[in-house]
Amino acid sequence: MTMPSPDAIRAAVAAQRAMVEGFFARLAEGSRAEPGITRDTYGAGENWGHRVLADYGESAGLALRHDAAANTYVTMPGSDPAAPRILMGSHLDSVPNGGNFDGAAGVVAGLVTLGALRHLGIRPTRDITVMGIRAEESVWFEVSYIGSRSALGTLPDGALEARRIDTGRTLADYIGACGGDPEQLRAGHRELGPGNVRAFIEVHIEQAPSLVEAGLPLAICTGIPGNFRYPNARIVGRHDHVGTPRRFRRDAAMAAVDFAGALDRIWADLDAAGTPLAITFGRFHTDAKQHGLTIVPGVFHFSLDVRAYDEALLARLKAEVPAIIRRIEAERHVTFQLGPAAGAAVGVVDADITSALTAAAGRLGIASMPLGSPASHDSAAFAAAGVPTAMLFVRNEHGSHNPREHMEIDDFLDASAVLAHWVIEHAG
Amino acid sequence: MTMPSPDAIRAAVAAQRAMVEGFFARLAEGSRAEPGITRDTYGAGENWGHRVLADYGESAGLALRHDAAANTYVTMPGSDPAAPRILMGSHLDSVPNGGNFDGAAGVVAGLVTLGALRHLGIRPTRDITVMGIRAEESVWFEVSYIGSRSALGTLPDGALEARRIDTGRTLADYIGACGGDPEQLRAGHRELGPGNVRAFIEVHIEQAPSLVEAGLPLAICTGIPGNFRYPNARIVGRHDHVGTPRRFRRDAAMAAVDFAGALDRIWADLDAAGTPLAITFGRFHTDAKQHGLTIVPGVFHFSLDVRAYDEALLARLKAEVPAIIRRIEAERHVTFQLGPAAGAAVGVVDADITSALTAAAGRLGIASMPLGSPASHDSAAFAAAGVPTAMLFVRNEHGSHNPREHMEIDDFLDASAVLAHWVIEHAG
Repeated sequence: MTMPSPDAIRAAVAAQRAMVEGFFARLAEGSRAEPGITRDTYGAGENWGHRVLADYGESAGLALRHDAAANTYVTMPGSDPAAPRILMGSHLDSVPNGGNFDGAAGVVAGLVTLGALRHLGIRPTRDITVMGIRAEESVWFEVSYIGSRSALGTLPDGALEARRIDTGRTLADYIGACGGDPEQLRAGHRELGPGNVRAFIEVHIEQAPSLVEAGLPLAICTGIPGNFRYPNARIVGRHDHVGTPRRFRRDAAMAAVDFAGALDRIWADLDAAGTPLAITFGRFHTDAKQHGLTIVPGVFHFSLDVRAYDEALLARLKAEVPAIIRRIEAERHVTFQLGPAAGAAVGVVDADITSALTAAAGRLGIASMPLGSPASHDSAAFAAAGVPTAMLFVRNEHGSHNPREHMEIDDFLDASAVLAHWVIEHAG
Repeated sequence: MTMPSPDAIRAAVAAQRAMVEGFFARLAEGSRAEPGITRDTYGAGENWGHRVLADYGESAGLALRHDAAANTYVTMPGSDPAAPRILMGSHLDSVPNGGNFDGAAGVVAGLVTLGALRHLGIRPTRDITVMGIRAEESVWFEVSYIGSRSALGTLPDGALEARRIDTGRTLADYIGACGGDPEQLRAGHRELGPGNVRAFIEVHIEQAPSLVEAGLPLAICTGIPGNFRYPNARIVGRHDHVGTPRRFRRDAAMAAVDFAGALDRIWADLDAAGTPLAITFGRFHTDAKQHGLTIVPGVFHFSLDVRAYDEALLARLKAEVPAIIRRIEAERHVTFQLGPAAGAAVGVVDADITSALTAAAGRLGIASMPLGSPASHDSAAFAAAGVPTAMLFVRNEHGSHNPREHMEIDDFLDASAVLAHWVIEHAG
């Protein structure tokens, strides 16, 4: 196959604009909330997204299938069914009252690529597949990457028994109700892996304003952060009268202030040195049942999320925590109870795909920059399973997980063109 | 009048032991809660305390009266009704599930003094009065010193319309139901003041373990802390995705950490230099409706109580707050909203009475130490109204406002002997 010219690729991608606008509009129609968009995991909102994808695949004459986790696959079949496929896509669920692009853009970028291949008359050797992934947003079941890890056979033990926080019904229940097969998942079924997937490439809106700040439409992902987390930690001291002198106090809140302050100084120093990481105390609170204006806090609750792109750095930070805690425990006369730790491995992107994407952007005349993913993504599950993985980020204003997220379709088509370029090069 | 010998005073006080034990036992009987003691302000528990006091007064042949706020006065009349009286006492209410001694000890110490005067055959020139004070605990109506300030004519505007937090009924309602006269209070009636009170002396359990630490039974108060408070402050930043890089964040919780840390360092330095004060963030929390493991906190709530014995120090600290806030607002890109400030003046104890009490302890062979009151007390209201005021603290284990408070009757009789010594000297 002769490689089409950059202009031809851009024209083939530009020809998909009406499809793109129509797809996003139909997606929003069926998942509107007040305010924004709600596509609840394995619920009516997410189901609507999968229906829109399936309808499009059928109307475009593409092959359609669902797996045991009710993920949706839309495929332009290759001439060699045995060749590992190229997979593009992202998730079709959203947080409550989120935006229309978070997740869905990665699915639509895959459809743009399939449309561009057809527009250019390309018949691939390998299957080129768009995957609409289930259940990426961990707010619903408090389990991450449910759809992708189900397909990869890496769903953690017990996840099928997790309960959706708003309804209390189990994940297995929901999967069954959406046409999936929880028993097959329980038996360890593996739909995807390095043996049958040549690459997974995910387009996603950027969830921070780095591209807005840089004035660029596109970033090429240099890594997806791993993390360690203490979702439910607490500090136990003693409730005392507000007049209690300093030396007698066992103030749990001030111990938390010391702890958060110490970790924040570590972050500030590493940040100043250019090392990317993030340390977040998302829940950070005295006990509403016991606290008061005139009471020294005897209990304090917090969650901690530490994320970075370097496993060694994460390991070093995690190892530093106990010494910091011991010092504060001694000074403040309190006890830390960190509770169960959780964690995710760093998502290492494939160096070859990433440099080819960079080259493609250059060839297409699209300005881009390298960027560590601020957020977690299904791509991390693919990378952890050994599938060569890459990501492209589209400029997005006002962050994500809120109705104000805003992506320009021109920027989105730039990202889609870079994706299509790579797929055409590797379609065989 | 010849001053009795120290031994005679101690013997006269020791003779009251059975009355003391009986009084405390009867008080507990009618206000037992599970756990501890509840003498709710202007409710059944506090009323029980006033009934026990009135019953004792009548049975001992003392003069009994109540004022417009339903405070109870038990008086050994002096030969000169026009001479300003000596007033002893404290409050008869408690926090929910508190202890039996907090407040009540000051009333019983006054009764011990009256008993000792009779035991010694002393006929005073001036009235010697024990006052059972209403409504000192601000947990019930969120107004401090209700009983004493009603008697002193210094109850703040609007206080009579304050509602008890558990029932929603107004203070005026409650006062009327307890036999008081809210209309008289509304008209500005003043029962007590420097014109008719020679001195107010309050015995109280210590609410911190300074005396336990020092191994002493008794402390002589050097001052009652004043304070400034921000009961309902908040910090507004922006909720962001947990992956948001540091430079884009507007993290309200970390701004709170900076603020509490800065004030705590000021306290640590002053504490190390021997300056007594206390800085407490009693409520300190992210917003339960919006916070989460993977969300940078966009709002933070806190209460701040700063207390010290030196008005100039309080004024200086209060004046330092805005500069600290401005720095943090600039660094963290957040906005502080401190909300309404509240405050109480420092309660200055009378130097002559305090040094006479110290001399009396020495003469009686009772070891004592000077101590700034850790807590607020009705004495502060008397001092603010211009009445010469002093306090004695009794050793107490396990703090106060909880069922585990523990005072030894021997220590209590030591404090009562010092009080009685001063009263005998000044009964005229």
